Order: sequence, then structure tokens, then C-alpha cells
Amino acid sequence: MLKWENLDQLPAFQELKNEKHVDLAEVMTGAAGADRVKSMSVPMAEGLAYNYAAKEVDESVLAKLVKLAEEAQLSEKFEELYNGAVVNTGEKRLVLHQLTRGQLGKAVEADGTDKRAFYKKQQDRIAEFANKVHAGEIVNAAGEKFTTVVQIGIGGSDLGPRAMYLALENWARKHGCFKMEAHFISNVDPDDASAVLQGIDVAHSIFVLVSKSGTTLETLTNESFVKDALKKAGLDPAKHMIAVTSETSPLAKSADYLAAFYMDDYIGGRYSSTSAVGGAVLSLAFGPDVFAAFLDGAHKADETALEKDPLKNPAMLDALIGVYERNVLGYPCTAVLPYSQALSRFPAHLQQLDMESNGKSVNRFGEPVNYVTGSIIFGEPGTNGQHSFYQLLHQGTTIVPLQFIAFRKSQIENDVDIQGSTSQQKLCANVAAQIVAFACGKKDENRNKNFEGHRPSSIIIGDQLTPETLGALLAHYENKVMFQGFLWNVNSFDQEGVQLGKVLAKRVLAHETEGALAVYSELLNI
Amino acid sequence: MLKWENLDQLPAFQELKNEKHVDLAEVMTGAAGADRVKSMSVPMAEGLAYNYAAKEVDESVLAKLVKLAEEAQLSEKFEELYNGAVVNTGEKRLVLHQLTRGQLGKAVEADGTDKRAFYKKQQDRIAEFANKVHAGEIVNAAGEKFTTVVQIGIGGSDLGPRAMYLALENWARKHGCFKMEAHFISNVDPDDASAVLQGIDVAHSIFVLVSKSGTTLETLTNESFVKDALKKAGLDPAKHMIAVTSETSPLAKSADYLAAFYMDDYIGGRYSSTSAVGGAVLSLAFGPDVFAAFLDGAHKADETALEKDPLKNPAMLDALIGVYERNVLGYPCTAVLPYSQALSRFPAHLQQLDMESNGKSVNRFGEPVNYVTGSIIFGEPGTNGQHSFYQLLHQGTTIVPLQFIAFRKSQIENDVDIQGSTSQQKLCANVAAQIVAFACGKKDENRNKNFEGHRPSSIIIGDQLTPETLGALLAHYENKVMFQGFLWNVNSFDQEGVQLGKVLAKRVLAHETEGALAVYSELLNI
Repeated sequence: MLKWENLDQLPAFQELKNEKHVDLAEVMTGAAGADRVKSMSVPMAEGLAYNYAAKEVDESVLAKLVKLAEEAQLSEKFEELYNGAVVNTGEKRLVLHQLTRGQLGKAVEADGTDKRAFYKKQQDRIAEFANKVHAGEIVNAAGEKFTTVVQIGIGGSDLGPRAMYLALENWARKHGCFKMEAHFISNVDPDDASAVLQGIDVAHSIFVLVSKSGTTLETLTNESFVKDALKKAGLDPAKHMIAVTSETSPLAKSADYLAAFYMDDYIGGRYSSTSAVGGAVLSLAFGPDVFAAFLDGAHKADETALEKDPLKNPAMLDALIGVYERNVLGYPCTAVLPYSQALSRFPAHLQQLDMESNGKSVNRFGEPVNYVTGSIIFGEPGTNGQHSFYQLLHQGTTIVPLQFIAFRKSQIENDVDIQGSTSQQKLCANVAAQIVAFACGKKDENRNKNFEGHRPSSIIIGDQLTPETLGALLAHYENKVMFQGFLWNVNSFDQEGVQLGKVLAKRVLAHETEGALAVYSELLNI
Repeated sequence: MLKWENLDQLPAFQELKNEKHVDLAEVMTGAAGADRVKSMSVPMAEGLAYNYAAKEVDESVLAKLVKLAEEAQLSEKFEELYNGAVVNTGEKRLVLHQLTRGQLGKAVEADGTDKRAFYKKQQDRIAEFANKVHAGEIVNAAGEKFTTVVQIGIGGSDLGPRAMYLALENWARKHGCFKMEAHFISNVDPDDASAVLQGIDVAHSIFVLVSKSGTTLETLTNESFVKDALKKAGLDPAKHMIAVTSETSPLAKSADYLAAFYMDDYIGGRYSSTSAVGGAVLSLAFGPDVFAAFLDGAHKADETALEKDPLKNPAMLDALIGVYERNVLGYPCTAVLPYSQALSRFPAHLQQLDMESNGKSVNRFGEPVNYVTGSIIFGEPGTNGQHSFYQLLHQGTTIVPLQFIAFRKSQIENDVDIQGSTSQQKLCANVAAQIVAFACGKKDENRNKNFEGHRPSSIIIGDQLTPETLGALLAHYENKVMFQGFLWNVNSFDQEGVQLGKVLAKRVLAHETEGALAVYSELLNI
């Protein structure tokens, strides 16, 4: 029987508070530091590795974290989840995004169907549709091929798929599997849709409308915006649009769409990149095989997350160290710093994934917790960030734990040798240098040039950013966030915090306001 | 005589600590809340207004903040700065970015020249050059017009100009002053340059190489990358490239460039959008008149910052409230949330501006300070953010002060009416709703649906995002950051924290490493 206890009820958590704060500058220096970097590494799926040598942990802290994982029953809770328990207690829903990429445990039946079969069927239907588009069997009214795909969605229907598209665009071009360029319309700001529509050839564009409920205000507004533009161009919107939605939504069986592909209530928006939400746009852009390879990588990472020993389970270990940093060491933020321009929007996706999942202050039973939960996530690609906010990270008064990501090879593999090294070598040299600079610092008599060090970081190292490694990377973070939710005893799968704003916005638009809200409405000319 | 004292030496700071914490939910409710929104607003330049009704301040707190401004001699220090004092004590430099857009005080002479005249001359030289490019008087080797401009730079030479370009792109297209599209190459990741070069017509592209020192590793590497591509295309790089640099840099008088435009050591990278660093790319993209209008807006905001009464000086008031939130209320982060898709990269620019300027732990004399300084800055445009990280902002355990920005009108002014309101009205309704939702919250028996409220925010409201209002917005934040630096008694104009990483990266590339750094280098195949 599972016990869902608050973090501060677990003995290991209390013991962790008594652990000596590891002196990072000391342990990372000299031969001992070298040994640490060699040994404190966990293999991940698809040849990636999670290296945590530059985290403020030692054998003693790790032993307590292992104990914490056992007390919090992390593996058992994950098992419950993938076997179809109602882990999303708030909305009383199963949590099945892992099933979109493979079967981890027992068959899960819901809504009268086997869910793995359901998700696989959607993937296959999308593959068939995409292949027909690429083959010129599904064409526009003039009988011409579609050249562009435009995703209309917001939040999880936008950030994840967009980040994944950008992550694979160059790789796909290099490997001859780039099929169509993709664009994204998300914001209700009319300039977003207008600018995208100005920049594309609408007559050869296929639009993917993504809304699970079929009622998301921004998305329906942008759909109308797009339909308007299509009609003005003398085109029939129904011949240019597909829907990704739940089977019960008003969009599901509508004649307004060329086709509809389905997700369900068991896939949260921020966990939906591997469902039809990411599947339609990515399969159209890069072909179904690339999307399948991406799912494969994610599934392999899920399998790694099954490992019961936290020291061999990268997502679980990452989660445990993160909670130690947040709740024992007291750091409020985490920066995600990919040394890969292709991952330029990956931090924005993780920002949603993490902050929307674990930015809670009640536990899964609706009781307030007495400790801090999800941290603030932000980040930009390196080396760009080095010339920007790294100043504060190195010498500011708030310590921010860092999550580096780096690959040995670039995606396009086009490079130049300047001053004895390639750009890719310079990129990698910089990330290696930063880890050590943050950890060890450097004493200087001039305090303005002094580096305290003691800034913890981890790094995920891979050979190259490919569909497989991207899938593994994505699933790593999804599983990390899930394990942290278990540790904090919160429900990581609902998002009640977004509701109040929606309710009040509707009131403003209906002119049913008073007090401060009425004055703001007036100031904004609504 | 100016006194440069630490924040905790100022009596008003100690008094602020004894102030009663304003109950935001209470004061923002009912008729009193409406009055607050009406009265707690300061006019800014170019018709913008800074509204701080939803901040945790009242008359008593404001009185202490006014006292704090006096004790910290904020106005006097600004006066010293714009009159040419060596305010950048670390590097022993003047700080003159305000002079790039107008004269605020006395003539400032340095390097044997009047600096306002120097910056104006560069602006005029750029204008002349841009006009010739647009008129087809400066052309490529085949005698054809340039159609594209590509900025090569990193950090301040990238983030600010890129954010400004994106902010004005739609506006310029709408108003018939869009001259050339701009692209940006920044990261040393070879995929960044490769991808940009793949997407443009190099034969009709003009490249702007931006490096003050002429020695920035990433920028010189990317320059070589670009030159390589130009040569491979049978083109002469010297006919496709201009430089923005200091007069003493190796790039200044080189035959490798069509022209060179100058900045100097008194303009920090993150403050350089209004100098030649932003001037070249923006004048080429939109024409010199648009750039001049942008400078005008910035200058008007600088003039507003001269006001000695903090309650009439939006940048100073914003700074004071921010320090109160950071040092008295203890909030570690600030989110910047523009309800304008055109400002999509504005938060990334402010992240650099703020975190690189005030992420310090020693005062201007190099002595450690006993209080926290610059906060963590992050943000994404609304309404996108609402469907992402707002969950944590509403219901998480860490309170994050918010800075909203909104405009009554869109830029393209193309809109559709759906369900009785336009997209722009929906956008504005959402920001109004969020302010009140964050401040007042909403009680619910179901704790999972409960909103505590008491989340402070401010909003800058304008009519439309134009060159003038963008300039005013930019200068507002520059001046805010400057005033906060004065309050914290730090030097906001150096960035020693970026040096150690550079030194270590060089060592890695020279294979002069040992210990942890050697092992990381090996893991990354350098």
C-alpha cells in the first residue's frame, strides 16, 4: 500500500538537514576533483550521461537521498502511475503520457479501450496522413502540394512542439528529412497571427489546430483569425486545417477539418509533445520516421526511470538533488543552460513543464504544505548566456543551481578552424570551463575580481542532438519533474492556478467589472 | 559632495524594515482599490504611464522610499553620471549611454572630443550609409541592392538590438518603412551561423560585425565563419561587411570593411542599443528616421529621470519599490511580462541589462555588501506565459513580483471580432484580470482552487508600441537599473564575473588543463 506523505514527514528529510554542507570548491579541486568527475556520472538513455560531480553532494548526502527515495516510495509511485492509477487526484484522472511512446507496465484500459493501442493508433493515423501530404495525395484545392505547416495552440500545445521543432530543424535539413517548414501561432495578441500569416504562403499551408477541450479562448480566436485570412485569399478553410483534440471535443467530428487526431484527458498539455499534439506538426515537418525515433528516445529514457536504485536512475537522482538544493540548501531558482543553439526554446518548455507542474502550495490532498515546492526555472543557450546574466550567477548574492546540457558534435557539422580550434570545440571548452569556474571560483585580492565559487551545477552530455537524444532529454525532465512532485507530495498534473485569471478576463470582456478591475479596464480602453 | 554609502547604512532603509507589510488583497478591493489604481500612476515619456497600485506600498512606505532616495542621493548621482564623472569605478570609465540620445547636462569632454557630438556624428554617418544602401548607391559587387542585414555580435551586441528589431519589425512593415530584413548570429555554436547563412541570400546581404574591443572570441569566430561562406560563394567579404567598434580596436581602420562606425569605452554592451551597436542594424532595417525616433523616445525618458521627486520619476520609483521588495520583503526574482508578442525578446534583454549590471556582491569600493543585490529576471510575453509558468506565480510557494507591460492598440491593427470582442481587447482584458487575480486572489473551500493573492505587480501602459515608446521603455529600464545600482552602492557598469570562464576556456583550448577541468574536456572530446 502506498503512503503519500509530506516531505517533512520523512525521516531522511530531517536527516538531510543535519548533513554537512559539502565544500564544492574543495572537493572539485585537484586529483580528487578529477576522480569525482569520472565517477559521479549516471548513464542515460541514447548514450547521454548525467554528471553531477559539481553538485554539493557527497557519499553521506547521497546515502540520505537514497533513503529519501525509498521512504517517498518514488519507484512504487511511478509504477502506480504507469499502470493507470488516478495520480492526478485534483481532476481525478490517470496520467499516461509515457504510454504515448511505449508500454512500461500492465495494459491500461480506460474509456473502454487499451490506451497504449489508442495512442499508437493516433501516431499511425498521423503518419499515414503526413505521408499522403508529402506524397502529394493530400493537396490544396488547386491540386498543389502543401509546403508549410502552422500550429495554432498555446501553452503545452505550443511551447513543447515549438522547442522540439527548433531542436530538430537543422538536423532534419542535414539528414535529408526536412519535409515542410513549420510556424506557430499562439498569443491572442493579433500581431502574432498577422505576422505569421504575412510571412507564409497561405495557399500552400496546412494548419494544425490544437486544443484538448476545443474551448481554449486564444486558440479558437486565432483559428477564426486564420480562417478569415484563408477566406480573404479565396481559400476554403476546411481544406487547409486539421485538428488535434480529444474525441469528446466539439472539434472532433467537425466538417471544418480535413482530419482530426486525438489525445485525451490523461495527457497534460505540458506533457503532450510525444502525443498527437507534437506528433502532427513534427511528422508533417520531418516525416513520421523522425517522430518515431523521437518517441523511441523518450521511451528508452522512461525505461531508465524504472530503475529502483536512485544512483542508477538519472531522472530520480536529478530530482532528489534538486529537492535537496531547494528544501535543504534553500536555493529558489534553477537555470537550464543548453550549449546548443538548437535548444534555444528548450528552457522555455522546461519552464512550463516544471513551474506549472510543481508550482503548488497544497499537497495532493489539498492541505497546505510547510515547505517550498517548485523552483523558478529560466535559461538561455550558452555561450550567449555567458555574455548576459552569468555575471549574477558568478558574483551575485543569490546562488542559482545550474543544469548544463552539451553535445560533442554540432548538428550541421559545418565548422571552421580558427586560432587552432573549431567553433564546436570552443563551445564545449566554454561549458567545461564554466562548470569549474562556478564550482571552484578563484581568489583575487581585488574583491571585484574575486570569484567565491561554490555554485553547483550538473551537466548532461551527449554525442549529438538527434531525434533520439532529444526524446531522451525531454523524457528525462518529465520524469524528474514527476519524481519531484512525488517528493513534495503535490499533484504535478493539474493547474488550478490558471483559472482565476480566465474567469476575471471573461468578466472584463462582458463589462461586468467593478473596483480596481473596472479602472484597469478603462485605462486599457477595453 | 556625494556620499557613496551602503544601503544598510541609510537610516531610511532601517525604517523601511519596520514598516507594516501592506495587505495587498485588502487595499486593492472595493472602492478604495479603484481609487488606488486611479491615483498610483506616474506619467512616463511618450504617453506611457507607470501604475504601481498593485505594489505592496502605501503612503507610509512611499514616504520612507522618498527619504531613502534623498539619503542615497539618487538624483545627485545621476547628475554626476551624465555630467561625465567616473561612475564605472572598476574600469575607471565614464558612463555615457544617455549621451547617445541627447544632452542631459553639461558638455562632456573625453578623448579630446565632445562626446555628445561624437555619438551624434556616428548616428549621422550611419544614417548617410544606410540611405546610400537603401538608394542603391552602396551595392554588392554585381551592382545589386542589398536586401538583408545580418548582425554578428554577442551579449549586448546581440540581445538589445535583436529585441529592438523584433519589437519594431511589424510596426515598420505596417508604416511602409521596412527596408531590409535583419538576422542575428551570436552563439559560437557553429549551427547558429550555419542555420542563418542557409536561410539568407548571402550575395545580397550586408554583415555588421559588432565588437567594442575587436577581440570577442565568439564574434571573431563567427566573422571568420561568415567570410568563409562569402568566399565559397565567390564573393569578396570586404564588400559585404561593416564594423561597429571602438576607434582604437583592430577593426577600426581595416580594409576588411566597407565602413566602420564607432562606439567607445563609456558605453557598456548592455547599454548600447541606442549607440552605433543598435544604430547600424536598426537604421539599415528600418531607415535612419525610425532609429532617430527611437532615440528621441529614449531621450525623453532620460529627461523624466531627472525629476528629483521620486513620486514623479517613474524609473526612480520603480527602482525604489524594487529594492523594497528585494531587501525588505525578501523576494528573489522579478518577472517581466509584456502583453505584446513584438516584445518577445525584451525580457531576455532586460535579463542581461539587470542581472549583469547589479548581480554583484561587492560595493563600488570592492567591499563585500551585507545584503542581497540584483534579482533574477525572467519573462515571456502574455498571454503565452499564462498558459505556462503563471501556475507557480499564482499558487507556488515563492512570491515573484511582476512587471506587466501593455498597449491599448496592436501594431499591425489587423483584428477580428469573435464572441463580441477583438483579439486586442482579449489581450488587454487578460492583463487587467491578471493584476487583480494576483493581488486579490480568491478564497475557495477547496484549497487546491484557492488563490492567496498578495502577489504584487506593476504595469506600464501605453497606447501603441512605436519607435518612440520603445525608446522610452528601454531607457526607463536602463535608468531603473542605474538607480538600483546607486541604492545597492554597486558598480552597475562593469562585469568582472564573466572573466574567469573566458580564462579557463582558453586553457581548455590550449590543452593546459588538469584535475576536474581535464576530465570534463575529455568527456566533451575537446
